[in-house]
Amino acid sequence: MGYLFDTDTAGERTGENEFTAHVTDRWDALNGVNGGYTTAILLNALKETMPLPDPLVVSAFFLKRVDHAPATIRTATHRVGKRIATGTASMYQEDAELARLTAQFGTLGAEGRRFSAEKAPGLPDPDDCVDPITDGPSLNISILERVEYRTAEMPGWLKGEQGDPYMEFWMRFSDGRDPDLVSLAFLVDAAPPAVLALGELSTTLQLTVHLRAHPAPGWLACRLYTRYVSGGYHEEDMELWDSNGELVAQSRQLLMLLDR
Amino acid sequence: MGYLFDTDTAGERTGENEFTAHVTDRWDALNGVNGGYTTAILLNALKETMPLPDPLVVSAFFLKRVDHAPATIRTATHRVGKRIATGTASMYQEDAELARLTAQFGTLGAEGRRFSAEKAPGLPDPDDCVDPITDGPSLNISILERVEYRTAEMPGWLKGEQGDPYMEFWMRFSDGRDPDLVSLAFLVDAAPPAVLALGELSTTLQLTVHLRAHPAPGWLACRLYTRYVSGGYHEEDMELWDSNGELVAQSRQLLMLLDR
Repeated sequence: MGYLFDTDTAGERTGENEFTAHVTDRWDALNGVNGGYTTAILLNALKETMPLPDPLVVSAFFLKRVDHAPATIRTATHRVGKRIATGTASMYQEDAELARLTAQFGTLGAEGRRFSAEKAPGLPDPDDCVDPITDGPSLNISILERVEYRTAEMPGWLKGEQGDPYMEFWMRFSDGRDPDLVSLAFLVDAAPPAVLALGELSTTLQLTVHLRAHPAPGWLACRLYTRYVSGGYHEEDMELWDSNGELVAQSRQLLMLLDR
Repeated sequence: MGYLFDTDTAGERTGENEFTAHVTDRWDALNGVNGGYTTAILLNALKETMPLPDPLVVSAFFLKRVDHAPATIRTATHRVGKRIATGTASMYQEDAELARLTAQFGTLGAEGRRFSAEKAPGLPDPDDCVDPITDGPSLNISILERVEYRTAEMPGWLKGEQGDPYMEFWMRFSDGRDPDLVSLAFLVDAAPPAVLALGELSTTLQLTVHLRAHPAPGWLACRLYTRYVSGGYHEEDMELWDSNGELVAQSRQLLMLLDR
């Protein structure tokens, strides 16, 4: 039946504003359950309750460690306007609130004014790229089995080198699932963090995703970077461009550096 | 008694999780009450209820037009951890929810790893700059009486020219109030929008602000830009740098283009 991402992010509706979902161990990042996976579970449930089809902007706050266990999702509709509907969804395990998402839904257009200050990442064809995970050192992180990456050359941080926290690469689901809006809200958080290039690790406090267009099938070209690390925190920005060269998602996180 | 920003954003506590505030006509932007002003009212109220001092990340969703009238603010605490506390605040007028804010509070440090991919905007001294509002065409917008701007030269859009939606300028409160964290969450939204350079107008759906350091007194150097306009929406990014050349706030909005 279908793709793993859909199975693993689906909630079962148990009330008008309540769902249950099972948080699996198949989408773990370096610090446990991936924040983008949690976001997708919440966004999937919220989408069921919203009268407009497309998530436009998603803001997720991460409150507490999520376990590999069943979770309850509670949703609320805050306002339904003609063009925009706003709702929230929260994830609970054993009555503790673990993550809280707010999103606005509407209808994404394809027409109208266009301006672009930057182009899609200028990467070689995926077939001419390196697979940094399969070809690199073995990492025992389950999300890396779910998502495939291609880079122009082996990233320095995988060879123990430091460099600027700026990366361009291709990304797609390993099982051939094509991207859609909900999965973009996962994929913006599905890459190894840019600050690995500085030898740093961090944990996400908050993630904002703008969904800008319905993605075409195929590989996503990604631009991932951190510009400012200070005071124990840093931002991380991600852009996802589809196979037609269209910007489809833009995200920013605030992360807290981990003591090491 | 004190500065207008403090008077006009103060809520009176009317219950454990309830405040009343008066939304004045002194902070109007092009489309009515400025979203940053609404954000500051909500953040001020939420800060009263949080056990940690510094807002680190603020996410505000704008649901419905705010009137110049009394408003009720309702707050909720979602989790208090050792290092991070998360809460929400919503603004109501006549039982309609108008804006909803989620924020995480903690303690901003000054120590630790530092990395900066970009420098503060390279502007001439404020004294050697143009005051685009006083020296430019008359605009009947109340927020422009509350905030002062200085630009290296008169912006093209004030002369009817189109250009790239990228602006650098100085900004401060007109009455001499120095910036602090809460007021930064207002100031990131207090400048004329970058898309004016494209001849476009838009309305904010959502605003995310990262507060990165306590600002030093004096002028803030600002970098404001939109990189992508498509499908009826665009993002707008703002950076605020204090008089010591420190990045103190970084924001991103999603805006919907207005039909004209």
